[in-house]
Amino acid sequence: MIATARRGRFAHVSQAARIRAATEQAVSATRGSHVLADVSLSAALRRRAEAIESAFAGLDETVRNSAEAQFRSRLAASYILGTFCRLVERGFDRDLARFSDGESAEALIHRWGFHAVDITPCADGRLSGVVDYILRVPPSIVAFRKSYAGAMFDVEESVRNWESVELRRWREARPNAADAPTRYLKIGVYHYSGSDPAHEGCAAHGHDAERAAAALLLRLEQFAGAIEATHCCGAAVATLLVGVDTDDDAIRVHVPDASGRMSVQRYVGNRELYTLTRDLAREAAKDAIRDAVAACAGVASDDATSEGMRWLCGYLLKNNLGQVDAVKQWHGGAYADRGHTERLIVVGDAIDDVQTRNVFFQAQMDTLEEGGADLDIGVRILRGLHEPRSSAVPVLVHVRFDARMPGAEGRARRRAARLRDAILTRYASLAGRGLLHVEAVVRGGDGAPLLPVDPLDLATESFA
Amino acid sequence: MIATARRGRFAHVSQAARIRAATEQAVSATRGSHVLADVSLSAALRRRAEAIESAFAGLDETVRNSAEAQFRSRLAASYILGTFCRLVERGFDRDLARFSDGESAEALIHRWGFHAVDITPCADGRLSGVVDYILRVPPSIVAFRKSYAGAMFDVEESVRNWESVELRRWREARPNAADAPTRYLKIGVYHYSGSDPAHEGCAAHGHDAERAAAALLLRLEQFAGAIEATHCCGAAVATLLVGVDTDDDAIRVHVPDASGRMSVQRYVGNRELYTLTRDLAREAAKDAIRDAVAACAGVASDDATSEGMRWLCGYLLKNNLGQVDAVKQWHGGAYADRGHTERLIVVGDAIDDVQTRNVFFQAQMDTLEEGGADLDIGVRILRGLHEPRSSAVPVLVHVRFDARMPGAEGRARRRAARLRDAILTRYASLAGRGLLHVEAVVRGGDGAPLLPVDPLDLATESFA
Repeated sequence: MIATARRGRFAHVSQAARIRAATEQAVSATRGSHVLADVSLSAALRRRAEAIESAFAGLDETVRNSAEAQFRSRLAASYILGTFCRLVERGFDRDLARFSDGESAEALIHRWGFHAVDITPCADGRLSGVVDYILRVPPSIVAFRKSYAGAMFDVEESVRNWESVELRRWREARPNAADAPTRYLKIGVYHYSGSDPAHEGCAAHGHDAERAAAALLLRLEQFAGAIEATHCCGAAVATLLVGVDTDDDAIRVHVPDASGRMSVQRYVGNRELYTLTRDLAREAAKDAIRDAVAACAGVASDDATSEGMRWLCGYLLKNNLGQVDAVKQWHGGAYADRGHTERLIVVGDAIDDVQTRNVFFQAQMDTLEEGGADLDIGVRILRGLHEPRSSAVPVLVHVRFDARMPGAEGRARRRAARLRDAILTRYASLAGRGLLHVEAVVRGGDGAPLLPVDPLDLATESFA
Repeated sequence: MIATARRGRFAHVSQAARIRAATEQAVSATRGSHVLADVSLSAALRRRAEAIESAFAGLDETVRNSAEAQFRSRLAASYILGTFCRLVERGFDRDLARFSDGESAEALIHRWGFHAVDITPCADGRLSGVVDYILRVPPSIVAFRKSYAGAMFDVEESVRNWESVELRRWREARPNAADAPTRYLKIGVYHYSGSDPAHEGCAAHGHDAERAAAALLLRLEQFAGAIEATHCCGAAVATLLVGVDTDDDAIRVHVPDASGRMSVQRYVGNRELYTLTRDLAREAAKDAIRDAVAACAGVASDDATSEGMRWLCGYLLKNNLGQVDAVKQWHGGAYADRGHTERLIVVGDAIDDVQTRNVFFQAQMDTLEEGGADLDIGVRILRGLHEPRSSAVPVLVHVRFDARMPGAEGRARRRAARLRDAILTRYASLAGRGLLHVEAVVRGGDGAPLLPVDPLDLATESFA
């Protein structure tokens, strides 16, 4: 971990400079791109990543030039949190992936049999761009995106989320009517490192890719089983297991067979698919993806039962080819910093506004009592990065509220204050030595400002 | 608190003896009963209370006769927990209130416009018989019964509970079809002491009845507002504020006006109604209740809009007249032990199998991080009762699981073990001095056995 931190120590600045040069190069010459890569989408995503990098780059400069040790601790952490919050409020255009081959991706996903997508990745910062960069799914279709160490989501909570989505279909026909033949899809995303599997894999699963995949597959099966067992009338969800090689963001899609079953060993690997399809004509490349998916599912390419799921797998693979291509173009094949370079930790509710690789470790939780083990992993990773620079680990507690609900902001403030206090208690020794710095914010929905939580918010907790 | 504890010190045994004598007396002469009191229901409830008392009475005897100090601490606490668990598993017949005037209470409640009842009382042990004894509502209609200190329930969680009930109506037409013109009813129950308001009221609200009522009313309004604001198409719930005088179990029903509004100051008090109707003929007594309810609502007795809610208020008042009557018959007007005499604390999921007054303080929570303040109140109350006897405060962690869900038992065991460990950490000093004893159990649904949670259950937590 320490080794990784040293390697990545001043990686941010040099990386930002490298990105700039590479962007210019890419604009002038994209002829090397994969035939299916959406080059303009990649370029837009690249500009966003660059904006995020450069927002932090000023800080790196300041920290490097600063002689005062005290600046390098809490002040630096506070500066990082402030920078991050401003990036969140900046409102980057996340609607870049709204079309797929000129068609509305949302309409396509509905047409192929899915009305909502619930994505559970690992809390690892290298997956912090999972929706916009790695999978390139439009946020409008993503009903939930919650991260947990090792992607180990809570089954009972997922069932409640499903209930919430289904009730809206019944009552409000949103996003479609309840009798439409579509399913709720839960995607679990684990990760590994192809180049350094024993050190740069998933910390929560002992850097063991197979263990990470097997544990997540079991949990997806438990979720699907829970819905079927407790809700009658053919209630069923779709599940999909996806792996990410954090070296180059290439995914593995564990295509379900005709009966919906997946296997840890059976998947379509996008790195191989990239090589296979790179020199093909556009339609031939698409056919190659379809064939690979059908072969993995063990069905004929015109099998009707598995048609929707196979389309979805192909859609994700094709999207991800664009990301693999972008990493090849801009990072010379794979990322220079294969390990962790997270700036901060986000605890509480999900933040998806600042999607890009390795910006933050994030763990979703209501209380630290349930999420403590997840946060321990994040703190251990970020200590390895920040302590050598004598800087505190910045932790942002983030709690969302529905501004339409009476009293919701006050309740969110108390929850955020309680979570912050619990963190300061659990890591009292680190915080006392200036090695951990916690700030808390609440937010009344997408696009709303982040409101700082006052230490008085918990003190004013009343029964009224 | 200490004074109360001393007063109630050996109250259990003498009370049990008194009950036995009173029961015989009651069987031979019920002519003193209120005209609307369901005497046979009261007698059955009395027999159950007696069985519960006598199960604990043996322990009182043993503790009193025991010279060994060590028996009076953890062993006694463990004995209390074991006795309680056996009582839970005994499966008392809770279906006593299934008829109201010979009709199915469930069908009546549906017919009058309610498909599910969600009851949130205070965690105070004097309300532990709130469903079966005080309100006398059949458990089949009670979708949720969760207790919190000061009845301060979580609004967001209540919204999720509502969603869960409504989805079943849409998908499964259970308990009725979604287009049936019925509502979800949430009843909040606060309490106070008419005879000693400054000391025997609700500890969570500083023994201030008006404050307790106002805080709960606000929260009920927030819940109703949250449903209306976040769910379209005329989504609306009914709410009802009820107060209990813990001296004699007489309720106050804060009847909503024609627009559904309630007021802390405006209610029908059952103690007054008891006196008013006692000497009337049966139908005249019922008319008197109806008139009092309509007057409180400020509507004519044939007002159609408020009809269902007024029926429900009358139903609860009539049921409770039976309880007031029973307390008068068996306890000479009011309970001898007006304060706390709880045997144990239940933390986690609700237990309703052993409903009777003052048996246990219970606080519903997923984690101690959110429920710590509630448990603090319970521990403070029970220390006052148990420390003078040199006995540890017995705490039972109880987590339910849906046995149909794959892996649910393991997850429940880990949650129970985590909650137990958090309690032992928070009250480490008390536990270390043998003044607090915690055991944990999980249960796979109504009627299922209570399964002890092994200390290894948390240790074996794996990501799989």
